[in-house]
Amino acid sequence: MIRSVTDLAALDTCDRGSFVAALGGVFENAPWVAEGAFAMRPFATVADLHAAMMRAMATAGEAERLALIRGHPELASKVASAGAMTAESRREQGSLGLDRLSEEELARFERLNAAYRARFGFPFIICVRRHTRDSLLDNFERRLANSPETERAAALQEVGHIARLRLVEAVEGPGKPKTDGRLSTHVLDTASGGPAAGVRVVLTELGASAEGLLKDAITNVDGRTDEPLLAGAPLRIGTYQIAFHIGAYFAAKGIAAASPPFLDVVPVRFASADPEGHYHVPLLASPWSYATYRGS
Amino acid sequence: MIRSVTDLAALDTCDRGSFVAALGGVFENAPWVAEGAFAMRPFATVADLHAAMMRAMATAGEAERLALIRGHPELASKVASAGAMTAESRREQGSLGLDRLSEEELARFERLNAAYRARFGFPFIICVRRHTRDSLLDNFERRLANSPETERAAALQEVGHIARLRLVEAVEGPGKPKTDGRLSTHVLDTASGGPAAGVRVVLTELGASAEGLLKDAITNVDGRTDEPLLAGAPLRIGTYQIAFHIGAYFAAKGIAAASPPFLDVVPVRFASADPEGHYHVPLLASPWSYATYRGS
Amino acid sequence: MIRSVTDLAALDTCDRGSFVAALGGVFENAPWVAEGAFAMRPFATVADLHAAMMRAMATAGEAERLALIRGHPELASKVASAGAMTAESRREQGSLGLDRLSEEELARFERLNAAYRARFGFPFIICVRRHTRDSLLDNFERRLANSPETERAAALQEVGHIARLRLVEAVEGPGKPKTDGRLSTHVLDTASGGPAAGVRVVLTELGASAEGLLKDAITNVDGRTDEPLLAGAPLRIGTYQIAFHIGAYFAAKGIAAASPPFLDVVPVRFASADPEGHYHVPLLASPWSYATYRGS
Amino acid sequence: MIRSVTDLAALDTCDRGSFVAALGGVFENAPWVAEGAFAMRPFATVADLHAAMMRAMATAGEAERLALIRGHPELASKVASAGAMTAESRREQGSLGLDRLSEEELARFERLNAAYRARFGFPFIICVRRHTRDSLLDNFERRLANSPETERAAALQEVGHIARLRLVEAVEGPGKPKTDGRLSTHVLDTASGGPAAGVRVVLTELGASAEGLLKDAITNVDGRTDEPLLAGAPLRIGTYQIAFHIGAYFAAKGIAAASPPFLDVVPVRFASADPEGHYHVPLLASPWSYATYRGS
Repeated sequence: MIRSVTDLAALDTCDRGSFVAALGGVFENAPWVAEGAFAMRPFATVADLHAAMMRAMATAGEAERLALIRGHPELASKVASAGAMTAESRREQGSLGLDRLSEEELARFERLNAAYRARFGFPFIICVRRHTRDSLLDNFERRLANSPETERAAALQEVGHIARLRLVEAVEGPGKPKTDGRLSTHVLDTASGGPAAGVRVVLTELGASAEGLLKDAITNVDGRTDEPLLAGAPLRIGTYQIAFHIGAYFAAKGIAAASPPFLDVVPVRFASADPEGHYHVPLLASPWSYATYRGS
Repeated sequence: MIRSVTDLAALDTCDRGSFVAALGGVFENAPWVAEGAFAMRPFATVADLHAAMMRAMATAGEAERLALIRGHPELASKVASAGAMTAESRREQGSLGLDRLSEEELARFERLNAAYRARFGFPFIICVRRHTRDSLLDNFERRLANSPETERAAALQEVGHIARLRLVEAVEGPGKPKTDGRLSTHVLDTASGGPAAGVRVVLTELGASAEGLLKDAITNVDGRTDEPLLAGAPLRIGTYQIAFHIGAYFAAKGIAAASPPFLDVVPVRFASADPEGHYHVPLLASPWSYATYRGS
Repeated sequence: MIRSVTDLAALDTCDRGSFVAALGGVFENAPWVAEGAFAMRPFATVADLHAAMMRAMATAGEAERLALIRGHPELASKVASAGAMTAESRREQGSLGLDRLSEEELARFERLNAAYRARFGFPFIICVRRHTRDSLLDNFERRLANSPETERAAALQEVGHIARLRLVEAVEGPGKPKTDGRLSTHVLDTASGGPAAGVRVVLTELGASAEGLLKDAITNVDGRTDEPLLAGAPLRIGTYQIAFHIGAYFAAKGIAAASPPFLDVVPVRFASADPEGHYHVPLLASPWSYATYRGS
Repeated sequence: MIRSVTDLAALDTCDRGSFVAALGGVFENAPWVAEGAFAMRPFATVADLHAAMMRAMATAGEAERLALIRGHPELASKVASAGAMTAESRREQGSLGLDRLSEEELARFERLNAAYRARFGFPFIICVRRHTRDSLLDNFERRLANSPETERAAALQEVGHIARLRLVEAVEGPGKPKTDGRLSTHVLDTASGGPAAGVRVVLTELGASAEGLLKDAITNVDGRTDEPLLAGAPLRIGTYQIAFHIGAYFAAKGIAAASPPFLDVVPVRFASADPEGHYHVPLLASPWSYATYRGS
């Protein structure tokens, strides 16, 4: 399937058929949500369009909403290969490597899927692009303990997150809702009172079983990386580590420390909880001390 | 073999045979060092006795010192099983697991041993109790690049370190030279302005291939561990990591942070370079920031 | 008047007359409190004795407690010179310089005294040794807004603080209640990774109108002052400033900073709120950065 | 006198008379410097023009340079009122209040002026717009100890600073040399992990005898002040203090601290040494701890 991008202005004036054709896939297997939103035109912003679709979903009957939930594929399901999954779902799940799981991981997902379906009668829905694999599994296990009412609300909230991301990609126009986060850093040399240039900075995602390299950069003359460590997409909820190679930096400056140096590679480990937020994680370091914090 | 401890006062008055019998093993296979020190009696302190033995070694002929060096066993040598190693050497090398190396590690040691012996004509000597396995290998490779003169001096310096440790164990008396180091920590809660009690603190040694657990403790009401993290022995030169479990601490205090918390397990990684020194590595932490430094 | 110190053991066995003679002054002009405590003998600790006297006061009639409150002198009153004040009160008020006020300050106190007496019908009572002059005035003004019930309770609480201090001085014995606080500091040099020795540290009390020098010390090899900055008495509630002369310290170490240095005299300003507590206020400093916190 | 601003392009094409008329005042009472630069036209940037004038000064004879130095007025001289000072000098000295000195200060300046003239035979020259009054006096006293050669070089360096500032005001065009500095701040709340909005920030200049208020601002939602604390002019070499009112901030957030709060008004005192530099002096604060540093 070819994904096409539509202009918001065109959506405000086109006929019902074109409108639903353009937006019918934003809510998984539920073109009736787009149909409901059609009556609320025009939309000044993409965010307004998203809000209208959410309203259409919220004001539908209980049975329709449940059908919407049931229309979603299971995570990491073998059904995927059978073709029942929409192209959007396939792409989203692939972003996390859910289509390339080991046998063991697949078994874990299937156990969770089975337990979840047995308990709630519908598939587990989560906006995978807002989570690391570890965070996704944590949420999966945690939500298994929810009451059915709470869990239906949680599922619909995730449907909203998924729709927002799809809409931002499918529609061009003013006032797009925020869907991307950002991670940045800054290294200050507190021994010489200025930015630390030339410091290697390595970002990894920390998972239960392994680390995944996300970025390997060098600080510039301002002590920053030329580009944010992460940007342009949701900042996946999960645990990260930045390794600051300050031992090599101070050695190159000829600052005599101990041998081996007290501080060499400084790991800063933190979790993001807000995929649309900005996480600034700086390091203030001398050869013998450092501080870090969530900055802005 | 039963190790016996002698009193310094007894050494000051006994006959030459007993003196050498008691101290002959302090310098590996070189009772003549003890003989040389015999003439310098009496000794007010154990440190004086050590200094006298070092003087006896320093004033001997070049050939004797070289023979002393040659009298040492190779590190991790297969010769060890053949029984040529003294009991002291066997025990010291065992402290680092050098008698339980994998085939691969053994091969690496044998390569280094061969290269070293080819270059210098004597075995590599290092006071293993002052090093982690990684630090030992780093030193081995670094010292291969030394000139023969520099390396002979380095070897004799290590002989002195070894002798000091053996002497402190073999002789009771006043004025023992310092042979032990110390590692301590302290956790301050900067959000509530007091010591952080109940924080799990896990110390590991970091090596090229693995982590070794050294201590798993909980901070007391003063934010300290009841005992130092390390004490009573040389603080091995090498790389360590303290993992401070502050996420659980703040959660238990009901301080609302994000979910997942921005900071959970805070790793502080550092190297010690002074086996007889005191390393105090505190953590000042709020749910959103922390600082650490070499304190005192 | 000569103050005499009595032994707790003696108080446990002496006759009623001696008991009251020894302790009658602990509650201002109210020997009946000592009489009430006499019946509760023996006392294992001085703290028990204090608790017994507080109980005697608490279980007396409302009228007696009010009379007790009324028996206290006004703060900074001209009546003082007329001789109606007990020796204890005179000494306590003198510790804050309340007997050496300027005309203007005296006028302020008299205004507050008058307003307070008009509102509550009894004199303002506060344990002056637990406050700086500024803190005392702040409390005076704040408590003017209390309801009569709240204020009577506040007055009796202060009577208890006063009695505890008097008791600790009048009676020798085990288990004295804590009446002294402590202020200490520590200077760490984060540029060289060790304690900062030879740093001048000047402690002042900050008041509305002036600074009062309390201590002028130099850090020792551990980066601490040989004695605590304050100890052996209640740490008066109030505002303090420690001026750390780190510019001279780094200049003496030959660490090239800017000219003039970015940091020279670093003022750390803080308030104590717990006269019996320990305030540890360290400084972690490089030539370009510093941190401070309430430590332990 | 009306100050007129000339365009750099016009200076590149005008006749010698107009050129000297426009720039003759840039070097005090020394139009020959402008004449010397005339031959080096054209100038691509204002910085090039400044460099050309400096070259004209440097390649003149020793006697001419000495005359140039002698053509400057004394600082804070009574001669000022007699009209011998140029309008530029009058304005520059006035910026520091040198025309409004007390009798005592005037006496101090006259003592220094006399000692300086006796030692060097020419007036003390300093670019007053790059100094606070205290820094100016410090430099005056320090430079009195220079050798005559060192001091002549120092005087000419100051002449260059003065000329650069005058040139930047007198000539419009590309490539102006940097003459302005900047002071900025940022307040981070480490207890809640975000910028601290609504914090009062008061900047003062600290002098030997008094404080001068420079700015009284409130941090915005980013924890910054809407405008830099200082900008658009040289950042005078001297000592400053920023008072951060964090006690009120945390109280407004309802964060329970002690009463009185441990930290209320946090003073951060520092010196600037680089008038064309950027000083970023942030505060990271919780109710119980803070850190500051020269950032970027």
